[in-house]
Amino acid sequence: MSDLEGLNEVLRGEAPVLHACLSDLGKRVVFPPGIPFQAAEAAGAAINATIGQITDGDGNGLALPALNSQLAALEAEDRNRAFLYSPIQGIEELRDRWRQRQRRQTVDSVPSTRPLVTVGLTHGLSLVADLFGGLRRAVAIPSPFWGNYRETFGTRTGARLLSAPTYRDGHYNCEAVAEALSELPVGEPALAILNLPSNPGGYSLTAAERERVKQSLVSVADQRPLLVICDDAYAGLVYEEGVPERSMFWDLLSVHPNLAPVKIDGGTKEFNLFGGRVGFLTFGLEPESAAARALESKVKCLTRATVGSPVATSQILLLQALRRGDIENEVTEVRRILAGRYRALKSALSNLDPALLRPLPFNSGCFCLLQLPERLHGQVDSVRRRLLEDQRVGVISIQPEFLRVAFCSVAESDLEPLVERLAAGVDAPHRRRSGR
Amino acid sequence: MSDLEGLNEVLRGEAPVLHACLSDLGKRVVFPPGIPFQAAEAAGAAINATIGQITDGDGNGLALPALNSQLAALEAEDRNRAFLYSPIQGIEELRDRWRQRQRRQTVDSVPSTRPLVTVGLTHGLSLVADLFGGLRRAVAIPSPFWGNYRETFGTRTGARLLSAPTYRDGHYNCEAVAEALSELPVGEPALAILNLPSNPGGYSLTAAERERVKQSLVSVADQRPLLVICDDAYAGLVYEEGVPERSMFWDLLSVHPNLAPVKIDGGTKEFNLFGGRVGFLTFGLEPESAAARALESKVKCLTRATVGSPVATSQILLLQALRRGDIENEVTEVRRILAGRYRALKSALSNLDPALLRPLPFNSGCFCLLQLPERLHGQVDSVRRRLLEDQRVGVISIQPEFLRVAFCSVAESDLEPLVERLAAGVDAPHRRRSGR
Repeated sequence: MSDLEGLNEVLRGEAPVLHACLSDLGKRVVFPPGIPFQAAEAAGAAINATIGQITDGDGNGLALPALNSQLAALEAEDRNRAFLYSPIQGIEELRDRWRQRQRRQTVDSVPSTRPLVTVGLTHGLSLVADLFGGLRRAVAIPSPFWGNYRETFGTRTGARLLSAPTYRDGHYNCEAVAEALSELPVGEPALAILNLPSNPGGYSLTAAERERVKQSLVSVADQRPLLVICDDAYAGLVYEEGVPERSMFWDLLSVHPNLAPVKIDGGTKEFNLFGGRVGFLTFGLEPESAAARALESKVKCLTRATVGSPVATSQILLLQALRRGDIENEVTEVRRILAGRYRALKSALSNLDPALLRPLPFNSGCFCLLQLPERLHGQVDSVRRRLLEDQRVGVISIQPEFLRVAFCSVAESDLEPLVERLAAGVDAPHRRRSGR
Repeated sequence: MSDLEGLNEVLRGEAPVLHACLSDLGKRVVFPPGIPFQAAEAAGAAINATIGQITDGDGNGLALPALNSQLAALEAEDRNRAFLYSPIQGIEELRDRWRQRQRRQTVDSVPSTRPLVTVGLTHGLSLVADLFGGLRRAVAIPSPFWGNYRETFGTRTGARLLSAPTYRDGHYNCEAVAEALSELPVGEPALAILNLPSNPGGYSLTAAERERVKQSLVSVADQRPLLVICDDAYAGLVYEEGVPERSMFWDLLSVHPNLAPVKIDGGTKEFNLFGGRVGFLTFGLEPESAAARALESKVKCLTRATVGSPVATSQILLLQALRRGDIENEVTEVRRILAGRYRALKSALSNLDPALLRPLPFNSGCFCLLQLPERLHGQVDSVRRRLLEDQRVGVISIQPEFLRVAFCSVAESDLEPLVERLAAGVDAPHRRRSGR
């Protein structure tokens, strides 16, 4: 039996849902016994001539002074690691510290793998798409949804996106995914994405809704192997008392033998490291299990084949932050600023005529959605352009009827004027600017 | 005509070789008019609520103090950009400065696009594989070659790798690619990879060999559309007088209407930024041509779908280095150190019995190849393990008959002992270490 067949057999036995959902590409990847593999074996050699990094001969980088001086605030050993290749699975200390932080939301008996480091959350999504997407695979996504899911799953791998309308009569529809998958033949594996707090909705589930969503997904798992991708990009950014912050990943572990959740999170939002591109991919398995190792081998193969290795420089920046005892205070301070904007926006929207723009429920994250009145459905991009030209307000149009407002990037004092300009501009006859 | 059809038509008219080589995926990608597109339009708005970055409301990041302090040596504006999303095509000033540096090797009349930023060179290869690889596409690769080409082109996209033996009677075989493609039906598009200085060979072509390789590729282009991928990972690291440093990309532009070169390079090696993951992808077209814009749209779609955006943090580090007037002195200093190791290794190898280990010609880069005697062919991985266990020397085995020595990561003074240990260990009966 080849290494590859062995890995696939391990998954079939120990993680049958993940195995059932593997794409053709997912079935054929295994981390090859190439240079990184042999270099790892040679780590303790007296003379190590394995790896193509330019070093001082003793494993330390030869950073150019012009670059080295820019990271002078880091400890020498960290600075050195920032310039050298990261292990393909990520820097081990970072993986462990991130896992520890993830697991504040759960109890010891609940399994989760050591997270694999990715190039931002999108790379995590892309790896999952490669592993489990593929031609004609059904992927249910609560809509309106972040458009890039279309490119990542649909355009790239050929998966079939099934839109699951999220809002019904102005409320979150807890059955959305189940309804989107209901026409699928029994037994056919499917993927679903849960993005909470949501982009573009800014919505997190209440405790009662979480339970209903869970039960609904369990009913789907009665029909088919179901992989639930928890896109936790906006994790932690919850502003209403009583709305649970915990990732749905933990709630979906071990609830049904036919349901497997996958967690994608990262330092992008809570740690404000947008440009650093540090994400993590975590499975609901014991960290040293054979299935966890099989998935790690597959993910490492794909990481190596797409980006070589994840970014060491920003992994080190995030790592040194996680080492600090007081770092959560800094994270909380950003959340406090966002909560202030959230409240200012809620307050301003309460004065808005709902016949002009109807805010959909939101309580978290970075965004809210405003629904256009029926007479303007289909014209949302014209409305966006009109707001930009006449009111000098930038918002995102989402077909056919929504405007997305990113309150995360607007000062608290600008949110009332923003809403006033939206009210003034959304329905006004369009005044083309003259040449003056 | 849709945007996508329009782009493909532009390529068919203006860049017919690239169009002929597009994969199925390459044909269906176009940068969608989604959030980054709309956010770019809103850049000058009075209130900009388009993009999901957490800012101060005025476009500046809210970096956590714990992270911000680590980049304190950067100018405030650069530090800010290091924490925010990069444009998907890369930071514009970096693209321009890198292009300027690339074009030191050519003249004004020769076209090249503004390079697109990638997550290290591997991401550039992966983007090219997505655009032009795909099911059953022939890809000729001089061998022995870097194993990751197999995963990037073959495993991921289903392309067919044709091994083109590089060394014949101890000399570089300038016809290798043409020979590998000779059985292909006339008219069928093909890809070829040129990796010079080579990994694992450490070889750069002499002026006479460059001319022969060029003529040989021109003869291939008489038969079929040919895309030549110039993997310039080790560009600049040439240690012998009279061996040209210039990328073959420039030599292959406009030599045949059926031949299109693509250039992949980056800050990884010359700037010792291994962990930073900054690569570039460049086409041989006028920067503002419709074809260049069409390819930029396609690459941006794939970049967004695989990693979201390239790494801002390390782009800023590389950018501030490129701004310095004296940066080439620092680059040259690293090259000087490597040249010293190169000479020490050459000298040590000259004492080696070629019946035991035969060095293949090398003159550049980070590596050299040693060929095992015929009686040991097929046992190269056992030889590697023996060297590791008995001699505590780490080298890479390449099937069926080569050892790769990375002199870039061995101190000059260790190279003679390294060669002595290789000589002592390669053919010795294997002594298993006892438990003591």
